[in-house]
Amino acid sequence: MSFVLDVTAMLDPVVPNGVREADWPLLAGRFREAHGAVAAIAATGVYGYRELEAQAGERTRVAQFAQSVAGQYDDVVVLGIGGSSLGAIALRTALLPPAWNARTSAQRAGRPRLHVLDNVDPRSIAGVLSIIALPRTLFVVISKSGGTIETLAQYLVVRERLEAAGLDVSRHLAFVTDPAKGALRAIAARDSIPAFAVPPNVGGRFSVLSPVGTLPAALCGIDIEALCAGASAMRDATLGDALEQNAAGLFATLQWRAHVQAGQGMHVLMPYSDALRDLAPWFVQLWAESLGKVDADGLNVGPTPIASVGATDQHSQVQLFMEGPADKTVTFLRVERGQDELTIPNLEPGEKALSFLGGHALGELLDVECRATAGALARAGRASMTMSVGAADAWHLGGLMMWLMQATTFAGALYRVNPLDQPGVELGKRLANRELGHPDLTSHDQAGLATPSLSPPRTVRVP
Amino acid sequence: MSFVLDVTAMLDPVVPNGVREADWPLLAGRFREAHGAVAAIAATGVYGYRELEAQAGERTRVAQFAQSVAGQYDDVVVLGIGGSSLGAIALRTALLPPAWNARTSAQRAGRPRLHVLDNVDPRSIAGVLSIIALPRTLFVVISKSGGTIETLAQYLVVRERLEAAGLDVSRHLAFVTDPAKGALRAIAARDSIPAFAVPPNVGGRFSVLSPVGTLPAALCGIDIEALCAGASAMRDATLGDALEQNAAGLFATLQWRAHVQAGQGMHVLMPYSDALRDLAPWFVQLWAESLGKVDADGLNVGPTPIASVGATDQHSQVQLFMEGPADKTVTFLRVERGQDELTIPNLEPGEKALSFLGGHALGELLDVECRATAGALARAGRASMTMSVGAADAWHLGGLMMWLMQATTFAGALYRVNPLDQPGVELGKRLANRELGHPDLTSHDQAGLATPSLSPPRTVRVP
Repeated sequence: MSFVLDVTAMLDPVVPNGVREADWPLLAGRFREAHGAVAAIAATGVYGYRELEAQAGERTRVAQFAQSVAGQYDDVVVLGIGGSSLGAIALRTALLPPAWNARTSAQRAGRPRLHVLDNVDPRSIAGVLSIIALPRTLFVVISKSGGTIETLAQYLVVRERLEAAGLDVSRHLAFVTDPAKGALRAIAARDSIPAFAVPPNVGGRFSVLSPVGTLPAALCGIDIEALCAGASAMRDATLGDALEQNAAGLFATLQWRAHVQAGQGMHVLMPYSDALRDLAPWFVQLWAESLGKVDADGLNVGPTPIASVGATDQHSQVQLFMEGPADKTVTFLRVERGQDELTIPNLEPGEKALSFLGGHALGELLDVECRATAGALARAGRASMTMSVGAADAWHLGGLMMWLMQATTFAGALYRVNPLDQPGVELGKRLANRELGHPDLTSHDQAGLATPSLSPPRTVRVP
Repeated sequence: MSFVLDVTAMLDPVVPNGVREADWPLLAGRFREAHGAVAAIAATGVYGYRELEAQAGERTRVAQFAQSVAGQYDDVVVLGIGGSSLGAIALRTALLPPAWNARTSAQRAGRPRLHVLDNVDPRSIAGVLSIIALPRTLFVVISKSGGTIETLAQYLVVRERLEAAGLDVSRHLAFVTDPAKGALRAIAARDSIPAFAVPPNVGGRFSVLSPVGTLPAALCGIDIEALCAGASAMRDATLGDALEQNAAGLFATLQWRAHVQAGQGMHVLMPYSDALRDLAPWFVQLWAESLGKVDADGLNVGPTPIASVGATDQHSQVQLFMEGPADKTVTFLRVERGQDELTIPNLEPGEKALSFLGGHALGELLDVECRATAGALARAGRASMTMSVGAADAWHLGGLMMWLMQATTFAGALYRVNPLDQPGVELGKRLANRELGHPDLTSHDQAGLATPSLSPPRTVRVP
């Protein structure tokens, strides 16, 4: 098997306010409409994340570059934020062996460590700079626009270090940016820095299958062709307009319906797999930034995605999911058990709390806990669905990412928002840029940064 | 300064549905009632997390043990889940230098790496076991009850490895568990394994200042006395019943009011600091598991905490916080800028997108972005508060943790739930244990694990 999406626990009478048999024709019709709207928009060429064949050339350049520099670097450091970092983090966690950066070079078979600096905290940047050898490091600077201030600030700090060390920047920097525009593209041309293109029609949070994700991945030896092949297969399987045969449409439609019909506007993604753990924050950006906005009627809409991980969060969030307000759906990601099992030994036959565990495999325990949690939620009347995947490998991860990107596109049509923009972050950017002295800022930004204040601000000092 | 909580952006007219001047007496009265209820419960001795002086003896044992084994271990591996792992992770991220586990022994000044295995995923456990040297490793097994199946399963796997390697388990295992009861306590006594006590009146999610958090921390050289001194200072400052002088009461009361009065039931914690990044998931457990439950009237209540990190999540969740439904509060954690600054060099004077950054410090950029985001949210009518701390050091971290634990206790009284139990997770545990063959399970659990099913289950297969 490859992927199986089980939505049984979204249905009436399994859960209250679930989908009734009579609702299916309505939902199928609503999805068909949304699918039509997406198709019309797709015809304008804006959904570049689907066009994996058109990007084969740049993917080949990425693979060839990675091959050409193999063995030259002990450390790859990604400078990027949001859509320029979450994909690489998800790929690292899923597709490199655990604790990758704690491994010795021999334990990594000579492949580089992968650091992702996704913030401008000086402590983190100084920390990574203090443990790497610059002559053996490649910095991958990722900004689609070439104008992301956090990433540019990091780049300037790093470049100064490289120059101070007398190193050739063109051998220690690589850029991922717009094919033609922006500061990074200009600098790359001037300084012969290798640069890879994010297609103009691929937005940041949809860019993991472009060089944004594939360059860091390929540099560490991840099979990016398998990743994109899995994504292509999922795309092909989620192009149709028949709700019950389209796993992405079904996810989107049932989440949307749960929100607007059943008041379940918080959408938890809960992989029962450490490998897929960082897929959840990647999904959070995708779902939040694509759907949380002003809709066609001017209303503030959008679900709130929540990242979780099983079995760990059974000891954190599940109490709330079980007994708090019934305002959430949970989507479980299950991985079929593989060959790399660890069996729990029966070392303590006299201890009742332990002896029954003996002989079970750890993977079995994890899977039993997934099904037990789904079962317990359903008995408590809480909605969930379960996506089972054959393995947590590159092919299936590409498929999962495409599934969620396709679902986001459909959900945009269902919520009647443009899933590709993010107008809500502009004000904060402008306020920060003005404070920092950006030359372009116009006078309507002069009101300044302060929280509109009562006088005096209401504070408590401790102690 | 130490701590300043600014709640200006929770107030009318700064934000719609904010606290009006006339509301303060009502809120102060409601808090006084809640404070009284907490005081009555506290008198029964259940709030052990506050009793840091009574725990000084065990803390000294922890420190002495850490000192006595200094230099013996390259790796400390915590086996624990939920309340037995989230605290150690938060302490590691905040109080050890960045990328700690990627450092060489020399870069760590000989102190051990700290791995936290908080799941039963065989891949993660095998991964860590493959990169450590057992003769130089200490496994810290943490389970308050001594009966947490995930942790016991890990323990059995690890113990088998230790025995197979011919190692003395009493030198490679340490337990943190109940002082008298449970399987781990019995095994410790039998095998002379060092064991540290979680006081019976300290629940898992409130246990970070007990050996649950302090043992892993002390083994890595963290100053646990400073941690607990900061916590004590905050506790002393949050014992009073005057709302506007009690930062924990104010946090709890304003979050509760925002939920029940203004429909803002999602409570985001957003540290603008990589050091404090993992405080957010620790808070998520605390707030979710303590408050998400059935209240005194039998209603399903509780806010949903959400973890975030700035500036990173400006490129992920902030779009939703700005333009989605006005159903959230955001609590910013700001750290005063320290001495360890990195200044952005002005290397590209000709590039408009970069040149204005030159001369600013990275820490300044981070702080400007925090204030800009808070300002933008307020202008969009979205509620927030900001807690500023003097430094991200052990003393302040202890203070922050105590602040949030005290707030949780007060919030329990405001929501009229018992913040110390977690009855909602029992069903899932029982279902899993039954499937695994636990001997104690009674016949009413016989109905099995399956999701109550339609026949056939509703699934989509891809491709």
